[in-house]
Amino acid sequence: MSEADTSPARRSIGATRNPASQEAILAAAEAVLLENGLGGFSIEAVARRARAGKPTIYRWWPSQAALLLDVYHSRKKAGFNYPDKGNVREDLRAYVTGLLETWEGTNGAIFRSVVAKAQGEPEALAALSAYMADRRCQSGRIIEKAQARGEVRADVRPELVTEILSSFAWGRLLTERLDVSDAEVDAVVDTVLAGIVAKPAG
Amino acid sequence: MSEADTSPARRSIGATRNPASQEAILAAAEAVLLENGLGGFSIEAVARRARAGKPTIYRWWPSQAALLLDVYHSRKKAGFNYPDKGNVREDLRAYVTGLLETWEGTNGAIFRSVVAKAQGEPEALAALSAYMADRRCQSGRIIEKAQARGEVRADVRPELVTEILSSFAWGRLLTERLDVSDAEVDAVVDTVLAGIVAKPAG
Repeated sequence: MSEADTSPARRSIGATRNPASQEAILAAAEAVLLENGLGGFSIEAVARRARAGKPTIYRWWPSQAALLLDVYHSRKKAGFNYPDKGNVREDLRAYVTGLLETWEGTNGAIFRSVVAKAQGEPEALAALSAYMADRRCQSGRIIEKAQARGEVRADVRPELVTEILSSFAWGRLLTERLDVSDAEVDAVVDTVLAGIVAKPAG
Repeated sequence: MSEADTSPARRSIGATRNPASQEAILAAAEAVLLENGLGGFSIEAVARRARAGKPTIYRWWPSQAALLLDVYHSRKKAGFNYPDKGNVREDLRAYVTGLLETWEGTNGAIFRSVVAKAQGEPEALAALSAYMADRRCQSGRIIEKAQARGEVRADVRPELVTEILSSFAWGRLLTERLDVSDAEVDAVVDTVLAGIVAKPAG
């Protein structure tokens, strides 16, 4: 489904956008972020750099958090895909490892800042909530596929399983404990996995 | 062990404190919080109210976050204890439910603000990290006791199990999705539990 490539932070805006301007603004946002850091990031600076009006940006991204999430998401795509190796254990391990890895460096800092903003700004919470709802839906497909293969019980709620795993990763990100060993990833994945695997027939 | 009642956010400070002043400052901090809200909370306001010097407060609580965590912790105690019902499933359900309940209202707002601060202020991160290390140690005892009873496998790392569950609760708190049904708590607990239970002998 092509929805997978549409940012959920943007999708809530109904207006049709000019793709060139969108790309230009997103590229400007990333450049501002790299040059000024998070502390110097502002819609104003992005508008200046993209030679766009602030109202144009706000029409497409209702909050700074929404724009940051879009930058985050576009940067993530390069190295992060929901794994589909045909084996639920491998997929879940790759999912957790991928999350932890994508959060090393700038992308982790962006995501942390959005989570922080979401604790005080309703617009940021709305952007984060929309983003997470979409991500849960996407990552839940790992479990749906495993259910279709008969690896995971049919009564398991796909989104809840990946939520347990991504929440574990969130906790590590937000307390700067991202250096999770492979053994620890295995322990977490295998713990959750034991609770959802299909029982052998007979 | 009496350590359980000593706030980890404070414990790192070696100095012996005057209990009366400590209590007075903590009471003042809670009063300032209730009157001014989080936005109006400051060490200055607490010092004024407690008739204490700011250096005195900073000597005991190295950051606003450390003081907020102490207020949070002291408020939590009234209704929150690590459960010990002699049954790991009941204990873990009570643990998750207790976390979610203790975060409804002011206490959730305090904790969210500390997590948010920790994303930008090293002192806040240090306070949160010390607090969480202590909490993992405390909550891990649920699993240690279950291991002693033979309910949970000996090779399971106690702290990792309760970290998985508390991280799930964190995720709900930080995205304002605290309204978790009993069925959802059961699903999460039972998923994790299946991965750690001792296999029946033979």
